Amino acid sequence: MRTFTLEEINDLDKRYRTNLINCLSGIKSMNLIGTKNKKGQTNLAIFNSVIHLGAHPALMGFIQRPASVERHTFENIKETSYFTINSVTEEIHKQAHQTAARYEREESEFDETSLETAYINDFYAPFVAKSPLKIGLECVEVIPIPINNTQLIIGKVKLIQLNEEFLKSDGFLSLHDQGVVGGTGLDSYLSTNEIGRYSYAKPDLPLEKI
Amino acid sequence: MRTFTLEEINDLDKRYRTNLINCLSGIKSMNLIGTKNKKGQTNLAIFNSVIHLGAHPALMGFIQRPASVERHTFENIKETSYFTINSVTEEIHKQAHQTAARYEREESEFDETSLETAYINDFYAPFVAKSPLKIGLECVEVIPIPINNTQLIIGKVKLIQLNEEFLKSDGFLSLHDQGVVGGTGLDSYLSTNEIGRYSYAKPDLPLEKI
Repeated sequence: MRTFTLEEINDLDKRYRTNLINCLSGIKSMNLIGTKNKKGQTNLAIFNSVIHLGAHPALMGFIQRPASVERHTFENIKETSYFTINSVTEEIHKQAHQTAARYEREESEFDETSLETAYINDFYAPFVAKSPLKIGLECVEVIPIPINNTQLIIGKVKLIQLNEEFLKSDGFLSLHDQGVVGGTGLDSYLSTNEIGRYSYAKPDLPLEKI
Repeated sequence: MRTFTLEEINDLDKRYRTNLINCLSGIKSMNLIGTKNKKGQTNLAIFNSVIHLGAHPALMGFIQRPASVERHTFENIKETSYFTINSVTEEIHKQAHQTAARYEREESEFDETSLETAYINDFYAPFVAKSPLKIGLECVEVIPIPINNTQLIIGKVKLIQLNEEFLKSDGFLSLHDQGVVGGTGLDSYLSTNEIGRYSYAKPDLPLEKI
């Protein structure tokens, strides 16, 4: 085992350190965030920082970096309030990764990566047609994180479209057998297999597979 | 495909909705957070909300629920500032899940789940001996999320211990071949396999496997 002290971390080459620190949080969610500005220009960007914030009300968040390639996403959200979160599958993971390229504002990553848009009901922001899990959200809060000028963007879930075949009777939605990928660091994509689901943990009771 | 509108989401049975909404964010990181209060009482709790916040400085965060079973973790962090983030592997994933049980304050989940502590250098908070990736952090900010009374706890990385065998020459730390697990929802644990690592995306350049 190798131990890095704070001093050693600070002395690491910048690119090396970026890679290493990005791997520390574990297996990451990979999601495509779709937006559309007031003029109708669409945007699509991959994020590995989408998190669950609460179920009642249903809230999700993601981290917006200070001056990153994803800034079009945030500008569109500020303009219209709406965005979509779309799952990344093995089938589309390369196109999803390609959305991180610095395209110009007037270019849409949907077109550039040949990922088709889908629209559901009258929801303003575009979904990714090929994503098996599509979530429509309205931005309800933007929380500044002063220490490194990032922001936590919080959306309220307004619409969900999913493949019912993978929805269990208790509300659990199986993702691994739909080919939804995870990630490590900035550039590694992972397929997943279920080891097991376990009962709600209680003191002095053995876990059961469910 | 099935579409849920906001009204339909609101009408779902509470437990069903909790399960479903917890699955929406995608593949989750699973981590054990270790703390110790001023009296020396240790605590260990599983979290599926650990995220990367930045590499320069190296910052990580996690979401603290309003009045959850993990409150001992937050109380200890407020008391001492220090906590550890420890990866969950296939080998220890059942013990990790069991830490979610509501043990009394004077009981340590380390003892109750037979996960051994490890101490590194003079870092105050305990690590999980069997975790192949151990991170020591100092809490530097607690950001309230008023909309649902959760909080984003932010830690600065002060110490990293890892298995060098899985550290690549560019700083990338491979997790899937160390048995590090991901999760779906509240109770499903996943093993992972790498599909590929891809080059930094640029407009008009095809991606390369790296």
